Amino acid sequence: MRLRKVKNARERLAQNNNTYYIEDAKIYKGKWQSLFKNENPLYIEIGCGKGQFIMELAKRNPNINYVALEKFDSVLLRALEKAILDDIPNLKLAVIDAESITEYFDKGEVSKIYLNFSDPWPKKCHAKRRLTFKTFLDQYRIILKEDGNIEQKTDNRHFFEFSLESFNDNGWKLHDICLDLHNETEKYPDNITTEFEDKWSKLGPIYRLVAEKK
Amino acid sequence: MRLRKVKNARERLAQNNNTYYIEDAKIYKGKWQSLFKNENPLYIEIGCGKGQFIMELAKRNPNINYVALEKFDSVLLRALEKAILDDIPNLKLAVIDAESITEYFDKGEVSKIYLNFSDPWPKKCHAKRRLTFKTFLDQYRIILKEDGNIEQKTDNRHFFEFSLESFNDNGWKLHDICLDLHNETEKYPDNITTEFEDKWSKLGPIYRLVAEKK
Repeated sequence: MRLRKVKNARERLAQNNNTYYIEDAKIYKGKWQSLFKNENPLYIEIGCGKGQFIMELAKRNPNINYVALEKFDSVLLRALEKAILDDIPNLKLAVIDAESITEYFDKGEVSKIYLNFSDPWPKKCHAKRRLTFKTFLDQYRIILKEDGNIEQKTDNRHFFEFSLESFNDNGWKLHDICLDLHNETEKYPDNITTEFEDKWSKLGPIYRLVAEKK
Repeated sequence: MRLRKVKNARERLAQNNNTYYIEDAKIYKGKWQSLFKNENPLYIEIGCGKGQFIMELAKRNPNINYVALEKFDSVLLRALEKAILDDIPNLKLAVIDAESITEYFDKGEVSKIYLNFSDPWPKKCHAKRRLTFKTFLDQYRIILKEDGNIEQKTDNRHFFEFSLESFNDNGWKLHDICLDLHNETEKYPDNITTEFEDKWSKLGPIYRLVAEKK
């Protein structure tokens, strides 16, 4: 999710520090639940964009704690503005690069990771940047609980083909693979869409998988 | 591949015994190469239908031995008629049910298995009949060489989703996954189509994978 750069985005985020936006997220490694003041499971979305997906999810599931992560502060600012209007107590937002995710979450701290429409990095020479490349999967494995899993959605066929092979190759158990999610409304009636998904799903299939630690 | 039942199909097959059609295939378990009088690798297609795919493949690769297998004798008769016209010395045909494949091929005797447009058995209660169900994969594992693999193509999305999960779940290494084979002519320029593929590929994507023994 790209957005035009917003002036002083980081400062404007910081003005809302700790209500929704967590400025100094590293200090909560191993202590995220203390921010929510409960012991509910922790679900995270890596690359939340403007936050439509995770906000709707958080509203539907008040007994789960959600952390929305985004690399671009200008994008997260848009998500924050919406979160303030909507009042969602079980949601926090932070600017985090997935590359250093283990600096922010402790071993086994996370129950579920959502990867929605991540940048497909189509060039072969950029394969290492794809969020389902081996180095990322190894980090997700550390922060996920024993029975934790990853849910991935994308409209990018090549990225999904790559992801299937990468999960398989790195010892993850695949299930609920769907190669045309929007034509499978009976099986997945509760699919919550992202902004990107709303825009692009008419042009081709949306792919989806769940990958479990084995 | 279904075809109207042909009268006396088995007898008509038997009239051509041992040139192309192998009537008593079980006796060649562990000895298929003797039929070809060489030591070339052995590739098999399970469910060859009328044989368009494997005949073209055999013509292009004279240094590989091919065995085309089909459950329905009426269908195999059509394949045989074509093979006789075409003169393909590196091809044999046999009526075999995949369920008992290990009675026909010895441990490690086969280098490659093709599963093209196998019956998807869409009902959940028939899942065990799908040719990528665990019991079949376990048999394929036995007859395949150490570095052997399976190439699967299908137009049936649900069957392909099931197959991806089944291969993953049973410890096969997936590669060359393609979720729209006919839009990937640069990557797979040598795709040989089956009769079924020619007919149905215009209506939706053709899915493809390669699964290796691990």
